[in-house]
Amino acid sequence: MPDFSIGVDLGGTNLRIAAVSREGKLLEKVALSAQVARGPDDVVGDMCDAIRRLAEQHGSLGKFLGTGIGVPGVIDMEVGVICKSANLPGWSNYPVRDEIERRLGARVFLNHDAKVAALGEKWLGAGRNAENMAMITLGTGIGGAIILEGKIYYGMNGMAGEFGHITIEPDGVPCGCGNRGCAERYASATALVRMAREAIEAGEAPALAEAAASGAEFSGRSIYDLAVQGDEPAQRLFRRFGRALGIMMADVVNVLNLEMYVIGGGVESAWDAFAPTMFEEMRQRSIVYAATAPDNPMGKEDSAASQNVSRTRRTTVITRALLGSDAGLYGAARLPAL
Amino acid sequence: MPDFSIGVDLGGTNLRIAAVSREGKLLEKVALSAQVARGPDDVVGDMCDAIRRLAEQHGSLGKFLGTGIGVPGVIDMEVGVICKSANLPGWSNYPVRDEIERRLGARVFLNHDAKVAALGEKWLGAGRNAENMAMITLGTGIGGAIILEGKIYYGMNGMAGEFGHITIEPDGVPCGCGNRGCAERYASATALVRMAREAIEAGEAPALAEAAASGAEFSGRSIYDLAVQGDEPAQRLFRRFGRALGIMMADVVNVLNLEMYVIGGGVESAWDAFAPTMFEEMRQRSIVYAATAPDNPMGKEDSAASQNVSRTRRTTVITRALLGSDAGLYGAARLPAL
Repeated sequence: MPDFSIGVDLGGTNLRIAAVSREGKLLEKVALSAQVARGPDDVVGDMCDAIRRLAEQHGSLGKFLGTGIGVPGVIDMEVGVICKSANLPGWSNYPVRDEIERRLGARVFLNHDAKVAALGEKWLGAGRNAENMAMITLGTGIGGAIILEGKIYYGMNGMAGEFGHITIEPDGVPCGCGNRGCAERYASATALVRMAREAIEAGEAPALAEAAASGAEFSGRSIYDLAVQGDEPAQRLFRRFGRALGIMMADVVNVLNLEMYVIGGGVESAWDAFAPTMFEEMRQRSIVYAATAPDNPMGKEDSAASQNVSRTRRTTVITRALLGSDAGLYGAARLPAL
Repeated sequence: MPDFSIGVDLGGTNLRIAAVSREGKLLEKVALSAQVARGPDDVVGDMCDAIRRLAEQHGSLGKFLGTGIGVPGVIDMEVGVICKSANLPGWSNYPVRDEIERRLGARVFLNHDAKVAALGEKWLGAGRNAENMAMITLGTGIGGAIILEGKIYYGMNGMAGEFGHITIEPDGVPCGCGNRGCAERYASATALVRMAREAIEAGEAPALAEAAASGAEFSGRSIYDLAVQGDEPAQRLFRRFGRALGIMMADVVNVLNLEMYVIGGGVESAWDAFAPTMFEEMRQRSIVYAATAPDNPMGKEDSAASQNVSRTRRTTVITRALLGSDAGLYGAARLPAL
């Protein structure tokens, strides 16, 4: 009779809900077609109905521990409010947590989607055996989260892990955050499409131009498909992506020196296209990674860094996420069980 | 009758030793003129004599807790050995810790100079009231250290906090670490002198040229003196320094979201010359700093980041170190008392 909790992934287009046992077994998963961007009034009712149904259905199995919700954007965890979210514009300052707690009469935990995804990968995915890891989510932007000694590291006020806004090119492309040349301006789905349109405009990418004009959605996926087919301009875009991601990762590794870095999110599926350049950059740019890369445990005799390696654990692991889009669901369900 | 410990700052040119009470009171400080770069054989004997004398002299006051030693370069803390140090070439692979422990018959703790300085500032300096802080040491290079919940954060194998090798200019000046455009190539004493010589060579800096040709040592200090006197080319160098440091700090703040960042080291004395540019860059480039800067606690209504601020502590403090070159001595003395 396992205890269980419910995880909610409140995305910009989907609302997904899962019941997960305390041991990490998926009991049931549902997707609601609610248009969450239209605001909370319509959605919270449907969400609570679904949670109630799942809780009742699996209540015979064990104790219901509560509900965790992962949301995109900027949240105030203490107050349980979405302050601002590009994907959930109508939800700003709505008392999400308290309202759902009131309706359900059970505890609700609100958290960032990137942090919740990291928790999911730590619990049941790539980070199962890593007590200290970071997760990098490559999607519309770049999400980041740090786990130290098995727990989410929040920093002073929940903002730790803003890897996507690390500066890659000090005079580069302007970013919504106020900076120029942020990593996510070069290494995200949005960035791929922007860079592709620039290449098309410059007349450098005929196959990409054709794909963009075809009427089908022109996305990171379309660019990846061309890269896989051997289109050099598309491959070049992924090398630029990999270079930016590698610079960002080198900085992160130099600062944190963690055991493991898990790369996930939708664009992670293009791993083959960007990872070789990413690793090349990391090796050149991070004194810490160069000393601890798996195939270079003690590295060059002459490298200072290569000698500063503990006897117990030497290897920095950079790896792909294992749970796909379910990481956030599992991580959210983990929140009430912690 | 206070218990006490002994701190040793084993620098490239100086060997300084202090007895410090458990409460942080300096009992006695000595400087040995030993040429530490000549290797450990000469020096360890003198060091142990001095430690023994201090331990005996203050032994009537309380229990002697042991000795802490801060060293520059790459060390293996588990083995207690200096692996590689540009400033202590003769010391590589000498069993520093074990040899001194053997001679003294008391516990010895070996640690990095940057981490020990951070511990000193945390204990008795700028970070007294901060449980979570980083220290940035501006000297020949840039040293870094992170303190979480009052304790040094080492990372997987002691390499966390390599802030100086964060990439500022992806195609910039080559660095000894293998990267290009590392922060310390633009924001250190070495960098200032290099940039000054470049400006002199380009004929852009007559006053700097005069100072460099004067026969007196041409250092960061000489450049600072000219900047203070209003020399525009010298001031420009400090703006470049501040810009690079600001980019680096923005990245560090975005990743760590700590309460406090303490800037120390010899070049910190030029604060007035570089800090304005540093703060300007940080504000533009760090979404986390912009939201939490002291004079902008809730910031612009329209800024997403400015709203993601906890109710309890809102402010990121960037501040000057308080203990000068004694930070490392105090921090080293703190090691046996922890």
